[in-house]
Amino acid sequence: MHDKDEPEMAGRVTLAEVATRAGVSLSTVSKVLNGRSDVSPTTRSKVEHLLEEHGYRRRAAATAHAPLIELVFHELESVWAMELIRGVENVAQQHRISVVVTESGTRHAPGREWLDGVLRRRPRGVVLVFSALPDHVRRQLRSRAIPFVIVDPAGDPEADVPSVGSANWAGGVAATRHLIDHGHERIAIITGPADLMCSLARLDGYRSALAMAGLEPDPKHIRYGDFHVDGGFTHALELLQGPDRPTAVFAGSDLQALGVLEAARRLGLSVPEDLSVVGYDDVPPAQWSSPPLTTVRQPLRQMAEEAARMLLRPQEASRPALRMELATRLVVRQSTAAPAPAQAG
Amino acid sequence: MHDKDEPEMAGRVTLAEVATRAGVSLSTVSKVLNGRSDVSPTTRSKVEHLLEEHGYRRRAAATAHAPLIELVFHELESVWAMELIRGVENVAQQHRISVVVTESGTRHAPGREWLDGVLRRRPRGVVLVFSALPDHVRRQLRSRAIPFVIVDPAGDPEADVPSVGSANWAGGVAATRHLIDHGHERIAIITGPADLMCSLARLDGYRSALAMAGLEPDPKHIRYGDFHVDGGFTHALELLQGPDRPTAVFAGSDLQALGVLEAARRLGLSVPEDLSVVGYDDVPPAQWSSPPLTTVRQPLRQMAEEAARMLLRPQEASRPALRMELATRLVVRQSTAAPAPAQAG
Repeated sequence: MHDKDEPEMAGRVTLAEVATRAGVSLSTVSKVLNGRSDVSPTTRSKVEHLLEEHGYRRRAAATAHAPLIELVFHELESVWAMELIRGVENVAQQHRISVVVTESGTRHAPGREWLDGVLRRRPRGVVLVFSALPDHVRRQLRSRAIPFVIVDPAGDPEADVPSVGSANWAGGVAATRHLIDHGHERIAIITGPADLMCSLARLDGYRSALAMAGLEPDPKHIRYGDFHVDGGFTHALELLQGPDRPTAVFAGSDLQALGVLEAARRLGLSVPEDLSVVGYDDVPPAQWSSPPLTTVRQPLRQMAEEAARMLLRPQEASRPALRMELATRLVVRQSTAAPAPAQAG
Repeated sequence: MHDKDEPEMAGRVTLAEVATRAGVSLSTVSKVLNGRSDVSPTTRSKVEHLLEEHGYRRRAAATAHAPLIELVFHELESVWAMELIRGVENVAQQHRISVVVTESGTRHAPGREWLDGVLRRRPRGVVLVFSALPDHVRRQLRSRAIPFVIVDPAGDPEADVPSVGSANWAGGVAATRHLIDHGHERIAIITGPADLMCSLARLDGYRSALAMAGLEPDPKHIRYGDFHVDGGFTHALELLQGPDRPTAVFAGSDLQALGVLEAARRLGLSVPEDLSVVGYDDVPPAQWSSPPLTTVRQPLRQMAEEAARMLLRPQEASRPALRMELATRLVVRQSTAAPAPAQAG
């Protein structure tokens, strides 16, 4: 497929200069460029430094990329992961490309070992889910003409990195408006963690939808969860046992909504008769719950497909500030209804 | 990492003979062996045929495997998929190997394109989930010294292929015994499709547990589902509205159990007060349901880990009839209880 020792046509003079200045052979410089492990860390670091200083950038045409896309997750545990893998697979199969899946683990940024592997494998590109991309990694990928895109359901893209997300604010508006249209006025929200942009965007959408309907949110009805079942459960237990019990909860994620359903069951409340619940994401468990969840659909698979397509059209991925935001839409199932007459108003 | 044009030390004479008999150059034979695409289908097929006839088998030591494991799913949709990917990832990361994930799609066996890709990539091995492996594929992988293992939660291994499964019969016994121990006597089962071995094994476990307790199953309480939510829902609606309503359902899979919960909700029955439900698999949605499901845990991640380890100890994977079966265990949550006094007996 690709020959590691191909001459570097694109930057021959520069590479020779780098070799001279680093006091190493041209072949050592080439080894560093190709991510080979038989170079000492000191030499590698010196050569990388000089490559950067010289602004060396491999011409894409001169690089024989392997027919691989790298897909990197911070953690595979997420219910999102499967949809994202399928999206990248779909596009990869159309182009007869294989997908390498990596879990970066406890680190939020992929580590040195991962980077060595990528430089060695020379993929057509890298899709990162939710991972931060340190500057030096970004520079090394760019110097090898390996494009990268971040799929970012949390809506918190780093500046200067191409990314694909979805419309969180509009999703928050749609969820809340649906409840208002059913006649609810005491609507609580359990949004995600306060340090995620998507949590804030969904909360702002909720506030705006209420304001547009002339409603004022009760401050004690605004909660920050953890995007997991437990967070939804704990906050819902408090909300549903407190004064001015809400007649509806916008749960901020499907997993939090499942926690709200369990809290309602424990308290003997029926959904949707006594309480309406709206989720967010539309991951498969949203259809399987009892009752099936009304939720805001994030098009996760399409987001991953767009990210993979961006990689395969490198002229697009190399536009540094490209941010693609796909629409969300409300999916109405059976967890929402009008409030019981005694509760309304 | 590996050089496609390395001399084939292991079978030089045979390869030369093959070339002569096929009327092609030695380099063409080498191309076929390495899965290169610049060989006509006719030539490829002729060479493959002769390689087989000569019983050519690359010596493992002579093959420079790439640091990859291939993981092939029939469909990624399955709730099992994520756990299996994580299991293979765990072992791969320990060995600094990458994982290529492929979905074979509508075909139950991976296709020609996939095989070409694998022969080209020369992975350390292949883990197949639920996929049939046609004879010619098996032979071609063996001739390249690429080991393969089937992870087979359905318990339906092909003869002559190393595989990892779990103890389905024992799982069926454990689920049913748990219900009997709570005092249930009218226990229904919704097992999986009748053409899957695991469905039959779980059903037999159910029958045996009843027999050991001196109970006779009611034939109309034995159903074959589809392992999806809908199958569980449809069968449960019938079971719960029929005569001699069961006080407990062993649902055969967690997704079917979720369908049973929804049927109970529609009929105004509370779980576990009016109906006990036991799932099977212990995939994440089992913890998130309302109430959380009592279920039989299949150790999916460990099964995938064992499969990956078998690949990396090729002396084991090459033992053709190796079948590893991991234990299942009952996980008690909140969907099971004693039957209501009026219902019991």
